[in-house]
Amino acid sequence: MSKIITISREYGSGGKYIGELVAQKLGIPFYDKEIMEKIAEETGFVNEFIERLAEYAPSKSIFAYAFVGRNQAGESMEDYIHNVQRKIILELAEKGDCVFVGRSADYILQGKHETLNVFIHGDTAAKKERVCRFHGVIPSDAEKIMRDIDKKRSVNYRYYTGETWGEAKNYTLTLNSTKIGVENCADIIAQLYNNM
Amino acid sequence: MSKIITISREYGSGGKYIGELVAQKLGIPFYDKEIMEKIAEETGFVNEFIERLAEYAPSKSIFAYAFVGRNQAGESMEDYIHNVQRKIILELAEKGDCVFVGRSADYILQGKHETLNVFIHGDTAAKKERVCRFHGVIPSDAEKIMRDIDKKRSVNYRYYTGETWGEAKNYTLTLNSTKIGVENCADIIAQLYNNM
Repeated sequence: MSKIITISREYGSGGKYIGELVAQKLGIPFYDKEIMEKIAEETGFVNEFIERLAEYAPSKSIFAYAFVGRNQAGESMEDYIHNVQRKIILELAEKGDCVFVGRSADYILQGKHETLNVFIHGDTAAKKERVCRFHGVIPSDAEKIMRDIDKKRSVNYRYYTGETWGEAKNYTLTLNSTKIGVENCADIIAQLYNNM
Repeated sequence: MSKIITISREYGSGGKYIGELVAQKLGIPFYDKEIMEKIAEETGFVNEFIERLAEYAPSKSIFAYAFVGRNQAGESMEDYIHNVQRKIILELAEKGDCVFVGRSADYILQGKHETLNVFIHGDTAAKKERVCRFHGVIPSDAEKIMRDIDKKRSVNYRYYTGETWGEAKNYTLTLNSTKIGVENCADIIAQLYNNM
């Protein structure tokens, strides 16, 4: 059983950065969406999965599935990607202690490893400033983009877990990064990990 | 402006005890429902308020208001009590740094003082064990009592604040006392208070 930190976060709250800081402090790997996708490509897992699908429909390419919106297993492309990520998250967790950001990792690892599930949120003005500074968003677009991305995260979480994103009871702890500060957030999380 | 810690909590989560520990550690007063009621009585505020009401209806006693469910200001008895508590909370906050447990103090003090708003929750089995051990509840009744009390707290919070009780975004931090431990919860809160 590994000791795993999962971080869910509002867009612009600095949750990903907090995850990186925590991983650095503890000297354990940090996995986010991009890294998981890269691993999927390198391990060939995605390709194998595509091949398996192809067995059942040799005349159809993956692009055809994308067009019809469902693969031969009756999965939507979203479910397909989610299942690939689920498998990768479980495999990475088996390797040892680590930090995951996003991807409903809290739910996927529940009962399988010792998890410290964190939700990071923040005040609107501070998040807005952050997305403009670090994500190259222009100020007039910021609030709509923040709302849209958080809505998507919330809907995905509900769809794959049946639970409410950002509801305290689903997390070991939740932190307002604006009020507490990203460095303090990372310190609290690292401290709790060391107590696990 | 005072530095104030407010603690909202699920029944059986140990939130009140955590509040007491934090107040002890920091050497600041701790106010819960009972203490506020005592202060209300001692200051005569409740009596004065009742007298003021009585001016408008000299022939009716407070018990008559209770029977009809509304006072002469059109307030329900619940609103009346809430308004008395609101005034007491604001007065106590003016006196200096302190810890409040419950009573929607987070909402009442918002923007008026520097607040650290905490929500404490826990796992059902641990909460059940706690209410049986410390509140004299018998095991077969525990889950229903826990559900009823939390439902009441949740409905009250919604009614007086318009917000969702236990939703991460309403609190500076939320903590699962079962996973983190009551002593660690108190340490984290005291540490954040010292950083304020």
